[in-house]
Parts: sequence; structure tokens; C-alpha cells
Amino acid sequence: MRVSEDHPRYRSLVTRERMAEMVAGGVVSVTGLIAHGRGEAFDYLLGERTTPEAEGAEMAAAALLVLSERPIITVNGNAAALAVKELGELARISDAMLEVNLFHRSDERMEKVCAFVEAGTGEQVLGRIQDGILEGIASDRARCCRSGLMAADVVLIPLEDGDRAEAMVRVGKKIISIDLNPLSRTSQAATVAVVDELTRALPNISAWVEKLRKDPKEAGRVLTNFDNRKNLTSVLDRICHHLREPSSD
Amino acid sequence: MRVSEDHPRYRSLVTRERMAEMVAGGVVSVTGLIAHGRGEAFDYLLGERTTPEAEGAEMAAAALLVLSERPIITVNGNAAALAVKELGELARISDAMLEVNLFHRSDERMEKVCAFVEAGTGEQVLGRIQDGILEGIASDRARCCRSGLMAADVVLIPLEDGDRAEAMVRVGKKIISIDLNPLSRTSQAATVAVVDELTRALPNISAWVEKLRKDPKEAGRVLTNFDNRKNLTSVLDRICHHLREPSSD
Repeated sequence: MRVSEDHPRYRSLVTRERMAEMVAGGVVSVTGLIAHGRGEAFDYLLGERTTPEAEGAEMAAAALLVLSERPIITVNGNAAALAVKELGELARISDAMLEVNLFHRSDERMEKVCAFVEAGTGEQVLGRIQDGILEGIASDRARCCRSGLMAADVVLIPLEDGDRAEAMVRVGKKIISIDLNPLSRTSQAATVAVVDELTRALPNISAWVEKLRKDPKEAGRVLTNFDNRKNLTSVLDRICHHLREPSSD
Repeated sequence: MRVSEDHPRYRSLVTRERMAEMVAGGVVSVTGLIAHGRGEAFDYLLGERTTPEAEGAEMAAAALLVLSERPIITVNGNAAALAVKELGELARISDAMLEVNLFHRSDERMEKVCAFVEAGTGEQVLGRIQDGILEGIASDRARCCRSGLMAADVVLIPLEDGDRAEAMVRVGKKIISIDLNPLSRTSQAATVAVVDELTRALPNISAWVEKLRKDPKEAGRVLTNFDNRKNLTSVLDRICHHLREPSSD
């Protein structure tokens, strides 16, 4: 469909059309589109911009990546469709591996998403062989890579399911979530919860990694000063403010 | 995919799977799934139940239907997929016509949705021949039926686009919206904005129509006492309360 340019939400409609095309290509699952819609609603409540709280979390996320021994970035269909270039850039800058993990998994779809991410990033990705199991998850979604997610100390999880996020925390991973719902189990379980839209969050984290990796002591101070609980409460306050006075900020 | 029953959001996941199947059947458009996701997010913020504000709006919506000369209910792909039976029931009880209007329109899809709604409701629907134009809309979405929407005094619009809702108000229609986003242009433009999930709202409106049609004077009083602006403000307060204390109500 052609969206007329004078529609008030033209830009958002164009992104939707792109996501719909990604379904046809097998990268995004149909229920992944519903998840994208949930994100859109929360982004709308945040004013569709990087809030000061998101900026603080992105700096803390970068600090965590800089101080990690073995970071990994997980990628699902939606994350790949929305931000494959930005994911590749952050992986390069932070020396992190990329591991594909799908909620709606089939061998065929796994191959499609891995190939899509490799083409878009120029990086080899993990995921085709899943020889690890995340304890406490009652489905296929428990599967992951032993040399990837299982061996990592810090895991960046864009748009991740709550079950998996909680399971990672239980086995001692430090988690950076990127999730527009500040109340989601994923945001609540994370060590650092970035409540921001993916294509805004990732370049910002990359920029902070570049700055902080020159000064690990500063990265340590950033992390010490970051209070995830307080930051999430502040996001909720901001949403309330925006609900009551939508045009005021 | 099989969703494991111990997943905390099992019920919501099952609805998502059903919506995905409706895409395969051509009733729901792929971008309709994204819209469904936005609704899910707002329903989550409302506590996934009919709030007192929604109850009040549903009573007022029923009053408006009872007092109307020529009511019509518009139906798009998502509304049909989620609540075809409930839409048919309300149309019968309130002597309203059903008119199919699609955001992503093609003759083929129009035929599919009309046939689906007729099979599900046992009612003849309007929409296959669109010989009317809603002024002020820059696309196909301006199309409607002269003997249907164009001739109606009261229009119930479940899950409607903001452009169309505003255009209907401009030509003097009284609008009942059913939309989970209290800030949407549709909710803001409506005469009576029902902020509730479709399958909860429709049976409730039907029950109120049955009561109020026996007493048109009472229907008049209900309408006089209903303040849409105040009701929407109260919904926003409720969402804020829920954001700050998710488990308290």
C-alpha cells in the first residue's frame, strides 16, 4: 500500500510497512509484529525520543560493556529487522559476539535470520547450533549457544522475552535490556534497563562505548552511580506527565 | 507454534496466535497486527479489565444508540477477527447496520472480510459497493457507503483510524469509538469514547442497550450526565496510578 505523505503519522506508518515486508521475507514472525505494536504504544507515551533516563541507562550500558570480559548481544527477528546495521556496529565497537535467538524458532527461520544478520553486519553470528540450555524455561526458547550466551558475563538483550531475561539473571549474567515497556519482566529483571527505541538506543550506546573504553575508571564510576530501580521509577513518572500533558514536553 | 501453558501471559499469547492465523486467512492485514499490539500495550496499562470509566462510556454509548434514528457499526479486519459474534449481536439488538471499511483496501480483501462477517453474524453487511466519499481524507480510506455510513446519524467505530473519525465528526456524525488509547485522535474526536478491549466492551454495550431501550427518557438522562472529556481525563489518571503501583488495583 502507498501511505499518503500528509498522514499525521507518516513516518511510523512507513516503518510498519517495512516490518510487514520483513514478515514476507521470513525474518519477522507474524506475532513479532504484534510485539512491535506494543513497543510503538510505549514509545508514543515516551514522546518518541530518547529521554534523560534512557540517556543515563545507555551510558551505564556502555560502561557495563566496557568492563565486561566476554559480552554478547542476542538478536531476534524484530531486532534484526529494525536495526541490523546498528547491532553490527555495536558488536564491533564493544568486541561482542552476536547470537541469534528466536522466540518462534524453526531451523528454516533460524537460517534466514542468521543469513540476514550476517549480510547486514558483515559479522559471523552464533545461533545455528544451539548446544546450551537456559535452566527454568519450559520450551524451545531455553536453547542457546554454550560458547555464546552461556559463556558470557554481560548479555545485551534487545526486545527480549521476560522468561529468558529472568533465566539469564538466575544463572548470574549481567543483563542490559532494550525494551520500551518499563514495567516488562525484562526491564524489571535487567541490571541496566534501557527504555528507548532500538534505532535510537544502539548508536547512543556505541558512542558511549567509544568514549568510556578510553577510561575504564570512569566507566566504573558511571556504573556505581547508576541506580536502575530509581531510573525506571523516573521513566514511569515521565510517562504519567506525558499522559496528562501530551504536548508539554 | 505451541505456547506452553505455564507461560505467565498464556492467554494473551493464544489471542496473538489467533490473530496471526487471521492474517493467513486474509481477514487481518499484517500492519493490523501491529495495531493489535498497540492495543495490547494500552490494555495492559488499564489492568486488562473494564474500568469504571469504560463502564460509564459503555452505558452512554448504549444511550446514544437507543436514541439514534439510523445507527451504523463500521467493521474493519481487526474488529472482525477479534469480535465478529459480538458485533453481530450488538447490530441486532440496536437495529444497526454493519458496514465494512478497510484501512488496507483491495477488492479481494473487501470480499473476504464481508464474507467472514456475514458468516459470523448471519447479517447482510454493507461495504462491497462504496459509492460515498468522506470529505477531507487523502486516500482510498475516504470511501464508504451512501446508504450506510453517509446516511447514519450515529456511527460506532471500533478500532478506527483517526483521520476517518475526525472526518465523520466534521460531517456531523455522532461517534462512539472503541479504542484502547485514550489519547488517540479517534478517542479525542469521539462523542463517546469507550476505552476498553473490544470483546469486553461490545457485550457490555449490548446489555445496556437492552435495558435503556425500554426507557428512552433514562437514556436521555444518561447522555446528559456523561462528560466525555472528564471521563478521558479520569482514564489517564487511572493509567498513571497503575503505572506507579501495578499490583494495587
